[in-house]
Amino acid sequence: MSTVAESLPTELPSASVRVPMQVLAYTGAPPRSDTRALAVESAVNLVYGSVPHAVMMATPADLEDFAYGFSLTEGIVESASEIRSTRVEVGEDGLRLHVELAPGRLREHLARKRAISGRTGCGVCGIEDLAQLPQAQLRNAPAVRVTLPAIAAALSNLDAAQLLGAETRAVHAAAWARLDGSLAAVREDVGRHNALDKLIGALMRSGTEVDQGFLVITSRCSFEMVEKAARLGAAVIVAISAPTSLALERARANGLTLCAIARADTVTVFTGAERLLVP
Amino acid sequence: MSTVAESLPTELPSASVRVPMQVLAYTGAPPRSDTRALAVESAVNLVYGSVPHAVMMATPADLEDFAYGFSLTEGIVESASEIRSTRVEVGEDGLRLHVELAPGRLREHLARKRAISGRTGCGVCGIEDLAQLPQAQLRNAPAVRVTLPAIAAALSNLDAAQLLGAETRAVHAAAWARLDGSLAAVREDVGRHNALDKLIGALMRSGTEVDQGFLVITSRCSFEMVEKAARLGAAVIVAISAPTSLALERARANGLTLCAIARADTVTVFTGAERLLVP
Repeated sequence: MSTVAESLPTELPSASVRVPMQVLAYTGAPPRSDTRALAVESAVNLVYGSVPHAVMMATPADLEDFAYGFSLTEGIVESASEIRSTRVEVGEDGLRLHVELAPGRLREHLARKRAISGRTGCGVCGIEDLAQLPQAQLRNAPAVRVTLPAIAAALSNLDAAQLLGAETRAVHAAAWARLDGSLAAVREDVGRHNALDKLIGALMRSGTEVDQGFLVITSRCSFEMVEKAARLGAAVIVAISAPTSLALERARANGLTLCAIARADTVTVFTGAERLLVP
Repeated sequence: MSTVAESLPTELPSASVRVPMQVLAYTGAPPRSDTRALAVESAVNLVYGSVPHAVMMATPADLEDFAYGFSLTEGIVESASEIRSTRVEVGEDGLRLHVELAPGRLREHLARKRAISGRTGCGVCGIEDLAQLPQAQLRNAPAVRVTLPAIAAALSNLDAAQLLGAETRAVHAAAWARLDGSLAAVREDVGRHNALDKLIGALMRSGTEVDQGFLVITSRCSFEMVEKAARLGAAVIVAISAPTSLALERARANGLTLCAIARADTVTVFTGAERLLVP
């Protein structure tokens, strides 16, 4: 199994993902001048074969990962091999992320796009009709078993790996953890869907198998996060925050394990407890 | 000034916005069975004049407020008077929220919809092209002055008013605070954009003036939250979490005051400090 350990952040992200900002802190009079790092939020327009597809507000980093992950979780491709190349173009009003698909895939994408307009990043909020709601099916249900110490270790590792988060307090993170709790990849973004899409793209590009590990997300676990995990083929999601009702419903329908409100000393399992290995 | 104080939650929300769920809590072996309240997340399809417009994943409460606020912040209407009625229809795959517009407004909406497909709730992620990015302009810039004790009081009041949040730990809240820190209205939702749209709708429906008070949001302050505040005509936003770079940029462009990382004892002002009244 190849990994993307080399992509783990080892230094602070480049200036483009955060900006220092002069602020005034009021704890009483007079206000105290201070400097805060703000997370940069850029409009990123995904363009397939010269046709604009969707605009996402995202952290302008790891955009190649984003292109791969977004394309998979939106159902535009089924594997990394269907993407020929990606390219970022800096425009006046934001970034254009060009994705070149294999020709057959591009034709299919454009035909479907004509039929269903405006599917977007969270998988939901661009759709116009309820019949278009995504319904991913877990490709297979890996027989992975996860231990509580591994989850605790992954949470601790992720806490240390959120470099942009530590600086800005305005971004989410998604990570892929191995069964010992070490992290194979971490991605951060102002949007939680984007953070997960970037992580998924990183795993796709590195060819990381997802049958022996688990997803960790810092955000709440809503419906679309479960759909994205299912598209990836991951069987276990560990969320630091709480899930919604529909997230649980979709996790059950897909046979996923959903752990949430995860802390160093307690993990609450909402469904799929058979994948938790307790001593 | 009329208020919507009567709409402040005085009892726990109805069962439909949260569901009790049997879970397993692992703090060691053996796991302990427990019950958790999950926030319900429903697909809500906004339908204007029988034409489906967008599907939002939302908390199924205060949907009439949602219809008004969404319609304003999406630029479909300019005031409450342009909405004739709203109606919720329960379908098998989710809720349909029918909004009847004044006839001229409906014609304009449908004509624009043909031209620009798929604008959606956060104001961004359904759009296909960067040229479609929303650019609200603050209608006027109220000369309101806000004190630090009022912000502290509003934060404390909001903390107590988040009934669904206290139960589920999975929803955001938006509130309108008067200059003494008391709250005129509070709305909660699994989506932060929805919470703000519902609050805006509640203010529109009650005819609450927004020239003497301030917005409080529990979530991060991203670009779209500032756009929505500007559409409402509010001059001061207080966010408990941090802003993004684009949120600050848009707040500056609109002449708004943006306070963030707000705590009982410290408020950090990112722009528009002239509206902070310090003794």
